[in-house]
Amino acid sequence: MSDSFEEIATGLAAVAKGLHARGWLLGTSGNLSAVVQREPLQIAMSPSGVDKGELRPEQLLSIDEHARIVGGQGGKPSDESLLHLRIVKERGAGAVLHTHSIWNTILSDLYAADGGIKIEGYEMLKGLQGVRTHQHAEWLPIVENSQDMPALAETIGAMLNEHKVAHGFLLRRHGLYSWGENLAQAKRHIEIIEFLLEAIGRTRNI
Amino acid sequence: MSDSFEEIATGLAAVAKGLHARGWLLGTSGNLSAVVQREPLQIAMSPSGVDKGELRPEQLLSIDEHARIVGGQGGKPSDESLLHLRIVKERGAGAVLHTHSIWNTILSDLYAADGGIKIEGYEMLKGLQGVRTHQHAEWLPIVENSQDMPALAETIGAMLNEHKVAHGFLLRRHGLYSWGENLAQAKRHIEIIEFLLEAIGRTRNI
Amino acid sequence: MSDSFEEIATGLAAVAKGLHARGWLLGTSGNLSAVVQREPLQIAMSPSGVDKGELRPEQLLSIDEHARIVGGQGGKPSDESLLHLRIVKERGAGAVLHTHSIWNTILSDLYAADGGIKIEGYEMLKGLQGVRTHQHAEWLPIVENSQDMPALAETIGAMLNEHKVAHGFLLRRHGLYSWGENLAQAKRHIEIIEFLLEAIGRTRNI
Amino acid sequence: MSDSFEEIATGLAAVAKGLHARGWLLGTSGNLSAVVQREPLQIAMSPSGVDKGELRPEQLLSIDEHARIVGGQGGKPSDESLLHLRIVKERGAGAVLHTHSIWNTILSDLYAADGGIKIEGYEMLKGLQGVRTHQHAEWLPIVENSQDMPALAETIGAMLNEHKVAHGFLLRRHGLYSWGENLAQAKRHIEIIEFLLEAIGRTRNI
Repeated sequence: MSDSFEEIATGLAAVAKGLHARGWLLGTSGNLSAVVQREPLQIAMSPSGVDKGELRPEQLLSIDEHARIVGGQGGKPSDESLLHLRIVKERGAGAVLHTHSIWNTILSDLYAADGGIKIEGYEMLKGLQGVRTHQHAEWLPIVENSQDMPALAETIGAMLNEHKVAHGFLLRRHGLYSWGENLAQAKRHIEIIEFLLEAIGRTRNI
Repeated sequence: MSDSFEEIATGLAAVAKGLHARGWLLGTSGNLSAVVQREPLQIAMSPSGVDKGELRPEQLLSIDEHARIVGGQGGKPSDESLLHLRIVKERGAGAVLHTHSIWNTILSDLYAADGGIKIEGYEMLKGLQGVRTHQHAEWLPIVENSQDMPALAETIGAMLNEHKVAHGFLLRRHGLYSWGENLAQAKRHIEIIEFLLEAIGRTRNI
Repeated sequence: MSDSFEEIATGLAAVAKGLHARGWLLGTSGNLSAVVQREPLQIAMSPSGVDKGELRPEQLLSIDEHARIVGGQGGKPSDESLLHLRIVKERGAGAVLHTHSIWNTILSDLYAADGGIKIEGYEMLKGLQGVRTHQHAEWLPIVENSQDMPALAETIGAMLNEHKVAHGFLLRRHGLYSWGENLAQAKRHIEIIEFLLEAIGRTRNI
Repeated sequence: MSDSFEEIATGLAAVAKGLHARGWLLGTSGNLSAVVQREPLQIAMSPSGVDKGELRPEQLLSIDEHARIVGGQGGKPSDESLLHLRIVKERGAGAVLHTHSIWNTILSDLYAADGGIKIEGYEMLKGLQGVRTHQHAEWLPIVENSQDMPALAETIGAMLNEHKVAHGFLLRRHGLYSWGENLAQAKRHIEIIEFLLEAIGRTRNI
C-alpha cells in the first residue's frame, strides 16, 4: 500500500464514519471512492457489504478502469463500482460519494415522473462548485433504478452528457450520487444536496 | 467468563451504545442477544432495566434454552428472553436485536389491521440477507402485543413458521425484532428495516 | 465538597451533557437536581444560565429546602429550584430533571385545553416505575406556565396531590418535569416520556 | 498570533464543530466571528469554503473594520464578513454566528411576505438576553437575500436600527444571524432561535 493510497483510504474511512452517523449510509448501504492515479486509472473503492460506521482504511480496495481489483487486502468491491468509474471518466471527478438518506429516497420517487428535481433560489446552492448565486437553478436528474450495472452505467453516462452541469443525480428509490474534484468537495456536495432535498421535502409537509 | 463470551458481550455492548444514541433503545427499552454455544444452547442476553447507552460487557447474562441464568455476574435477564430464544431456534439466528423506535412504534399501529407491512421497490431491501433486487417484496408481520411471554413466544413461533422468509417482525405499539447469522448481520437488518419504516412513514406525511 | 456531593454532581453533569446532545436542553434551558441528604434537606442543583452541554461537576450548587445556597463554588441556582424542591418533598424523589424538547413544547400547547395528555397502549409505558403492562393509562398533567415561582410551586404541589401516580407533568409551552428514586430512574422516565410525546405528535401528522 | 486571538479562535472552532454536528453548518455553509479588539476594530472570522466540522483554530483570520485581513495564516475571509462587521458595530456584539438550518431556511421563506416572524408565549424566549418572561413577543425580521454584500450590509444596518431589540434576523431562503456580548451568549441565542423556529415549523405540520 503506497502512502498515497493509505492517505486516500484514511480520508474515505473518516467520511464514511461521519455520513453513517448522520444516517445516510445505514445497513452497509452506499459507497465511496477516490482516484488514486489517472494513467492508468486506479480508484480506491469501498468494499461491498461492510458497515460504513466501522470501515477501516485497510478495507478499501484499489480497482482499475474495468473494476478489477489491483490492490488492497482482499474483499469484493461494491457492485456499483462501474457507476463510480463512469462518473470519474465523464466528469473528471477525484472522488465520488453515494448516500442512501430518508429524504433522497422519498424525493427520488416523488419527482420520478418529472425526471428530476429543479432546485432554485436557495443560498445553499452556492456550496455547489461554480455556483455564484442563490438564483442558480440546479437540475438534479432522476434515473430509474436497475440491478444491471453495465446497462445502468451506460444510462448514467448518457444522462451525464445530457446534463453537463449537474452536480449529482438520484437513482429512484435508491439514493444520491455526487462527486467533486477531491474528497472534501464531494463531501461538501453531498451535504449541500442532502440539505436541499430535506428542505424541499419538509416544505411540502407544511 | 470464557474469552468467547467476553468477546460476544463486548460486541453486544457496543451495538447497544450505538442504537441508544440513535434513539432506538431509550429508557432501558429494547434488548439484545447473541448465541454463545449451540449444544446445549446458551445465549448472551442483555439484563432487564439497564440503560443501553451505559451497558457494560460484564452486565450481559448467559442463559440456557429455558431462559435460566447459567453465567454472568448477576442481574435479571430481559423479560423477553423467551422471544429471543424462540427466534434463535426457529431461524437458527446467531444474534437477535429488538428496538423501540418512533417509526416502528407508529407504523406497527398504523398497519396493524393489515397484519403486516409490505415493503417493496426500495434498493435498501438488498441489505436484507438473500435479497438480490429492489423488486423484492418483504412482508414485515405485525403481532399483537402481550405481557404473557410464554404465550407470545408461541404466537411468534407460529408466525415465523408461516412467514418463513421474513427478516423481522413488529410487535404492535411495542417495537421491532430482527436477527441475523451473527451480530453484524442482525445490526444491518435493524438499520435497514428502521430506515425503510421511517421512509414509509415520512412518505405518508407528504 | 464531600465525596458524595462530588459523585452526585458528576452524575448530573454527565446526564446534562447527554440530554443537551439530544436537543432537549438547548440554549441553557432546563435544569437538573439530585438529593444530597434528606435531614435537613440538601439537593445538588444546576446553576442558572449555564450551557448544559458544557456543565462541569464543580458548577453544581448545594441548596437547602428554601433554595438557599449552602454549598458549591458560587453561581445562582436555577429560578426553578422551588419546583424541584416541591417535587422532592411531594414525591420523595431522589432526582428531578426538566427538559425543553420540541415535542414536549408542542404537545404541552396542543393538549392544554384538556389539562393533560392520556398516554396508553404503548409498551414504552412499562419504563415508568411501577407500570407492568402496556395497557396502563398514564395521565400527564399540563400546568399553565408562570414566572411567579412561589405560586407555581403551590400549583404544582396541589397538582401532584391530585394526580398521585403521575410520573411527570408538562408546563405549557415550557417543558417537561419528571423524576425518580435516583438519577438513573429520573433519566429513564425523561427518555420514556419524551419518546411517547414524539410518537404521539408524529402520529398526529400522519 | 496573540494568546487572546488563539483563545478566541479555539472557542470559535469548538462552536463550529458543535453546530456542524447538529446539521446547521452543512457543506461549508454559515460562518462565525468574535471580536478580538475594539479600537481599532479587529474580529476573528471564519475562512470561506471550509468544512465547519473540521475547522481548526489556526484557520481563523483576523480582519479589520473594512474586512481586510490583518492576521492569521492565510485564506479568504467569508464573503459575509461585511455583515458580521455591521452587526458588531450596530449592536456592540462580541460574537456573531450565522447558521443554515432546515427550519430557518423553510420559515424564512414561509413568512417572507410578513417581513418577519412574531415569536411569543414560549418559555424558551427567556434564553434571549434581557427577556424576563415567556409573555415576551420577539420579532425576528426577514431580509430578502442578495449577493451584493455592501448593499446587503446597508439593508441590514437599517433593519437593525428599525428593530432595535431584535436578537437575530433571517435572510430569506438563506439562514439565521444572531449574536451576543460574547461567544457563549451568541451560541445560546442561536440554539434558542433555532429551537423556536423548529417548534413553530413542526406545529404548523400538525
